[in-house]
Formats: sequence, C-alpha cells, structure tokens
Amino acid sequence: MCASLGDALLSRGDFARIVGASHVLAPEEDDGAAHFGHDATVVRGLSGRPGLVVRPCCASEVAAVLALCWERSIPLVPRGGGTGLAGGAVPLGGEVVCSLARLRGIREFEPSLWRIFPEAGVRTRDVQRLARENGLLFPPDPGASGESLIGGNVATNAGGPHAFKYGPVGAFVTGLEAVVAPGEVIALGGAGRRDVAGYDLQSLLVGSEGTLGIITAVRLRLLPAPAAASALLSFFPSRAAGCAAVLAVLAAGVVPSALDFLDGPSLRFAAAGCPEGPPPAEAEFALLAEVDGTAAEVSSSLAELTAATAAHSIEMRSPSVKELWAWRDTVPGAVASVRGGKLSEDVSVPVERLSEALSGLDEIAARSGLPHCAWGHGADSIVHANLLLDPSAAEERSAAAAAAEEIFALAVSLGGSISGEHGVGLLKGGRLALQWPEAALRLHEEVKRAFDPRGLLNPGKKLAR
Amino acid sequence: MCASLGDALLSRGDFARIVGASHVLAPEEDDGAAHFGHDATVVRGLSGRPGLVVRPCCASEVAAVLALCWERSIPLVPRGGGTGLAGGAVPLGGEVVCSLARLRGIREFEPSLWRIFPEAGVRTRDVQRLARENGLLFPPDPGASGESLIGGNVATNAGGPHAFKYGPVGAFVTGLEAVVAPGEVIALGGAGRRDVAGYDLQSLLVGSEGTLGIITAVRLRLLPAPAAASALLSFFPSRAAGCAAVLAVLAAGVVPSALDFLDGPSLRFAAAGCPEGPPPAEAEFALLAEVDGTAAEVSSSLAELTAATAAHSIEMRSPSVKELWAWRDTVPGAVASVRGGKLSEDVSVPVERLSEALSGLDEIAARSGLPHCAWGHGADSIVHANLLLDPSAAEERSAAAAAAEEIFALAVSLGGSISGEHGVGLLKGGRLALQWPEAALRLHEEVKRAFDPRGLLNPGKKLAR
Repeated sequence: MCASLGDALLSRGDFARIVGASHVLAPEEDDGAAHFGHDATVVRGLSGRPGLVVRPCCASEVAAVLALCWERSIPLVPRGGGTGLAGGAVPLGGEVVCSLARLRGIREFEPSLWRIFPEAGVRTRDVQRLARENGLLFPPDPGASGESLIGGNVATNAGGPHAFKYGPVGAFVTGLEAVVAPGEVIALGGAGRRDVAGYDLQSLLVGSEGTLGIITAVRLRLLPAPAAASALLSFFPSRAAGCAAVLAVLAAGVVPSALDFLDGPSLRFAAAGCPEGPPPAEAEFALLAEVDGTAAEVSSSLAELTAATAAHSIEMRSPSVKELWAWRDTVPGAVASVRGGKLSEDVSVPVERLSEALSGLDEIAARSGLPHCAWGHGADSIVHANLLLDPSAAEERSAAAAAAEEIFALAVSLGGSISGEHGVGLLKGGRLALQWPEAALRLHEEVKRAFDPRGLLNPGKKLAR
Repeated sequence: MCASLGDALLSRGDFARIVGASHVLAPEEDDGAAHFGHDATVVRGLSGRPGLVVRPCCASEVAAVLALCWERSIPLVPRGGGTGLAGGAVPLGGEVVCSLARLRGIREFEPSLWRIFPEAGVRTRDVQRLARENGLLFPPDPGASGESLIGGNVATNAGGPHAFKYGPVGAFVTGLEAVVAPGEVIALGGAGRRDVAGYDLQSLLVGSEGTLGIITAVRLRLLPAPAAASALLSFFPSRAAGCAAVLAVLAAGVVPSALDFLDGPSLRFAAAGCPEGPPPAEAEFALLAEVDGTAAEVSSSLAELTAATAAHSIEMRSPSVKELWAWRDTVPGAVASVRGGKLSEDVSVPVERLSEALSGLDEIAARSGLPHCAWGHGADSIVHANLLLDPSAAEERSAAAAAAEEIFALAVSLGGSISGEHGVGLLKGGRLALQWPEAALRLHEEVKRAFDPRGLLNPGKKLAR
C-alpha cells in the first residue's frame, strides 16, 4: 500500500518548491523529522518512519502537496499536534507526513456573532482562550488542549468531559475548508448556522482522521459563556452505588455540564492530588461533576445534583472547578507511573450498562493477569479502560493487547462502541467490523473510495475491517 | 432514468406477496393512490404519478421491497407524511412509492435515560407529546408536526424556530436504522451518545432525502424539559431596526430558544391573528422571541432580551408562548390567501447579512412584478422569501420561478445557502452548483453512487447539478 522511503525522498526538490526548502525535512538528514514518526501512542510502542516531512503554510500549499503526492502515488499522512491516542498520525513507513502546524491564522473572529474561523494549526487552547477572553465559550475540552491543534480535534471529532452537555467538537462546526483529492481546496458550510443544501459531507470529514481529506480551516460556532460554574466531587462505597448515582442524576432531570467518574483503583493511584486531601479509604467510585449557567441556575442545579446523589454517596466535597479538573488531568499520568506503562482504550456503552461494562472489565483484566482501573465520562458513558503494565515486558504487552480485543467485544456486546472519542487510527483498525453489519462496512469502504480512489490519504488508518 | 408505469405495475403481485395485497395500491384502480403523487408542493403545481404504492409494515418488509426494486430496476420513492416543501416525495412517474406510515412502533422509550426510539412512521407530534408527558423535551418543531413523520423529519434534517438554541432534528439523532441497497437493514450509532468508530454515515443519511437509503427507525436523545418559558413580541419601525435588534441580542449574549421574524408585509397580511390586537400601524418588522429555562433564568433572560432590543423597538408585548406560536403558524396560510398562491423559498444567510438579504429580495420581487413578503428564523437567519401570485396565471408562476433563481443566487452571494431547512428535493435540483465548488459537487455525486450505484433511490431528487 505504501510507497518506499525513496519515492517521497526522490521528490524532495519538488516538495521544496511548494513549501520552501526549510519546510521539508528528510529523516536521513534532519533530526527534527523523527518527531513526526509518532504521536501520543509512542508510549504503546507505535512509531513509523516518514519518507519526508513537509510543512505547508496555507491551504493552497496543502493542495499542491496533495496534488504532487497524487501525481506520483506517494501516500500522505496529515498531522496536527501529534496528541492522538489511536495512532492516526503515525506513518506506516515512507509516507509524506504533512504537518498542518503552520496554518496558524484566525481567518475571522466575530465575538458578537459567536463565531471563530481558525486554520487547522491553531491550538485548541487558543480557541478556548480567545473565546473566554471575549465572554464566550468553546466547550469541547479534549485532553492535551495545549498541544493539540483544532484541525486534529475536528478530524477526530474529539470530545472531553463537557461533551455531555454541549456535544463533541463536531457539534460546533458550521463549515470547514478541506483539501481533497486530487489536490483541490473545497469549502463546505459557512458562517450561517443552517444549511441542508447538500449531503452532509462536512460531518463525514469530521472524525474521518485524515483518510478522506485534509482539514485546513474550520468555522466554529461559540456560545455565550455561562456566568457561573461550580464543581461537586462525590465518593461512593461501591461501583454499583456510583453507577446508580449517575442514573439518579439523569432521572432527576439535572443537566450537569460534565459528570466524569473514577473507579476505586484510579482513586487510589491518583489519591495524592485529590482536592481537600486523599479520598475516603472506603471509596470505590467517585463522580466529578460540574454545573454551569446563571448563578441562580448553578445553585439550583447543584442542589438537585446533591439531592440526586446523596443517598448513594459517602462523602461530598466542593472543590473549585479549576481544582477538580486539574486533579482529573493528573489521573492518566499517575496511573501510568504505577508500573511504567498502560494500555488504555476508550470504549463507550449505553449509560445503563456502565456498571456491567466495568464488571466485564474486571473479568477481562483478571484473565490478563494485569492490574487495571477505569475512569471516564459517566453520563456519556465513555470508559477509559486501563491495563497497567511494564512496557519492557513483552508478555505483558501482548496480554494487554489481547485484553483490549476482549474490551472491544464487551463494549459492542453491551450495545456500545469500540471508540467513544479517540477514534480508530491504526490501533483499532478493522474493529468496526465487530460493531457494524456487513452492508454498512461496505458503505464505509465505498465512501473511502469515493474520496480517495488511489488510497493515498492516510493509508491503513480508520480501516473498517 | 425512470421505469415506465408498467414496470412497477407488472410486479404488483410480487410486492403484494411482501406487504399484503391490501397494502399495494395501483393508480389505475385505487383512488387512494393519487394522494401519493404529491406532497406539500402540490400548491406549486408539483405532482407525479406513482407506478405503484406499497405500504410495508416493518423494516424487513422495506428491505424486501427495495430488494425487489433492485432486482427489477424499478425506482423507489420513500415517503413520510407528505408534508415536504421541496418535492422530495413526489414521484417523477412510474416509481414505487414506499410509504413508511405503517412503521408506527416505539421500539424503546426510556424517559429516565432521556431516550426514545421511534420507527419512521411515528408522527413528530407524538414524539414531542411523549417527551412532554414525561418531563422531557424533543425540541425540533418543524411545521406540520401533526402530519409529518419523524422519519421524514430526519431524512430532511428538519428545523423550526427552536433550532436556534437546540439545533435541528439531526442534532438529536444518536443512531438510526435504515434500509440500503440492494435491500439490507443496517443500524448505525446506538443508544450510547458518543461513537467515533466509523465514518459518520449516520449524518450522511440525515438530510439525504431518501436518495441514499430509507430510514426506518431513529434513536433520539431528549432533554429534560425546561421548567418555564416566556414569549416576547417586539415591533420595529423598520427592517433595519429589527435586524439591528437581532444582532443586539447576540451581542448581549442572550440565548433565546427561538428568535423568529416577520417583515412588514407579513405583519399586515397576518394582522388579524396577532396577540393583543393588530400590530402597530407603523411596524415594519417584528421579532417573535421565546426564552426558556428555570423560572429565574427565564426572568433574567427576558430582562436581557428586552434591554437588548428596547432601543430599536416601538412596542413590546408579552403573549403566552402558546399564543405567540399559534399566531406564527397562521402566517403562511394568511399570506397564501392574499392572492390565492405563493412561492416560498427557504434560503439562509449569515446573520449579519439578513438585512441585505431582505433588501435584495425587495429588488428581485420588484423585477418580478409580484407582491412579496418574508419571515423566518432571525438568529439562525433563515429567510422564508415569499412571492404572492395567482396560481391560475401562468405568467405569474413563471415570473416567480425566475425570481426564485435570483433568490438562490442572492443567498449564495451573501455567503449563505439555497436551503436552510426544506432541502433540495425536486424544486432545487442542481442549485447546489451555485454554492459548492466543482470538487465538492463531484464528491456529492460519488457519495450518491457509493450508496445507490443504479440510481434507483428517489431518482431526480437532491441532485447536485
């Protein structure tokens, strides 16, 4: 499927004529190129060798790069901030890795109209900050917002805790600009919020992980920032009690902006950073909730939330919103440090099956012989299932990989998905076949062919089977 | 493109074996069949003759119907409630019209989990009612909710006034079941709220107007019903003042659940039903606003809304929410009755271009020699542009049709869309070419081919060019 290392390299001069010689890196000569061989899955051992790295500065350069790749049958890997957790930006070997990091313009920012139009290389954190500084909110908050780029967030339809109330990144896209084969810039949607004139190719590109086109700029709608927000941290004596509390919140009709969970082992691993001191010793589950709105609304939501969960809870704390999420951000690192490594999958299930999913994970982990823990988005019911391992132990790595397959099957058997927010990338290639019927898999492949008949756009990624 | 009348009719016995003889209607013999030759565009003269009407009772019968059509190259037109405004359900002549009206089951309704799973033939009003009776809200409120079916609403991604705050129908779809060529039932998404495992084929089917597949059931998320809602009806001395008020609302960071407008002529045509008596004589624009939330939130939003618009307004009224929308629902009929007919298009523009769009409409209407008026969704900036005509006057009909083309071009020139909510159907076939670049049109057609290589699914509808 892939070109040899040489194909891209032989065209180095032609790529340099497009983007400038200083923006072409060859692995042989430039130390900087190695960085483009992996993303956040490097901790799982994933890495590849780019044939060449090119760094265009604008959509028309991206189009010229793709056109040259098309002409010479050189595969291309689009790359954002390299923070992906499924290997979507990892070259198989020999591709042109096309970094979008230089597309840093804000094409339009109209705070009074609740709109921003950043290029793909703008950091997600900067979109969030610009919104905030102007009384607005860009709600999606996937991890690594300091490094991840908005184009990559759209290309993976990234989520985060606040997607429960507000939806994932794709819910905020009103238009996008993308480069499609054989090397053309197209614009879909626009500044207007409603458009049903064509098939929803925009939603198709959102989450397509660079396999259908290269997103170069995105029109985002923003929201007026809520006036207030408060956090509530509740501890539960058992997983069953915690999962019952999630259902009680929904049944009470409360809409928290986020309702994340940590299971008992996660709580113990991350105990040190817990707001107001370590979790109670008997805690086997915690809910990390945030409510937002007007001050009055926050106060009434908080009361309702407390009432809905109190019967199940053993302790409640009221950290600041900032403290709560700062602690939550320490969890993956704290868990990884226990044994030096971890394998983490992001399956999702219907919310009423969360407890079953976590019990199933216990059994799978027990068979693997590896310690495990789980956290995730409770009301959206995304489970970050983690197996702790020594990365130098090959048998542990392979036990974890086998367990991951069981975790995918478990999620699907409960009516869920193999991926709630990280995407398929390289790591989950082919697992969609567990979840979709044959006819849908065929359509998935036909859509890929419609956009990329030569299979040059991020080959080997987001494969249906 | 289409089969002759005979092709479908010759297979009548085979269709009867699938759905039962009493659920197959032939135009020659059954008076009831004529009804299936048109939708709400019949007032614009659109109507066709079905080759045969079939009424399957379930998804597997729909699949068998499509399989038979596929085998014999008989084109098929899926049909919901027949309330479409773009001719999407009108047969060109000779197709099998496949009514989804008998798929009336509610597969699942879990109020405490904010979910409902109706089949395509459930009336939208019944989805809204079931939600309401259980403390929940299904926000989309396209017109004709009493007759329109939820499957058709999803297949057109219908909108309505409350889409401003809540989004159109597609924003509530977490999964769907559809019959795709050559006659298979597929399920996409599910009861879980987050799934990024495959390409977003679900969003592709939403709004595809029966040209990619036949939607047979939809998993919808619901919201807890807001505790309170209030309406505000404001009148303005000029269109400019009214459009400025829309921008002032956005700039103030108020989020009304709906912010519709009526222009001066619309106000005069619909004066009789106006809450609290006819509009002030000098009113040239009105805003119909609703705010919802907790009682405290409603009261503060209403105050902010009033403050944002007061400077531009000449009079404000506080009808009940019910009165406000009951009046709004009379507008299309009142306008149509003035001269016996009207041509209405639903273009959208970026909100800051609303005033320009309405001025452009003045000029276009003046050239056509026809009286006109406009109403629509102000903050979403969808303009229902209406030309009033005598339906028996051929020259008026053709003047209106020519004006419609200018209206499409105007919307596109302002950065908008040829359709904000009605879809393309038959009426706007080919006009997407005004709006999308060549490469995107090609992808539109490739996607159609991927789903429907024989061109049998609702042929002639939603054509890109």
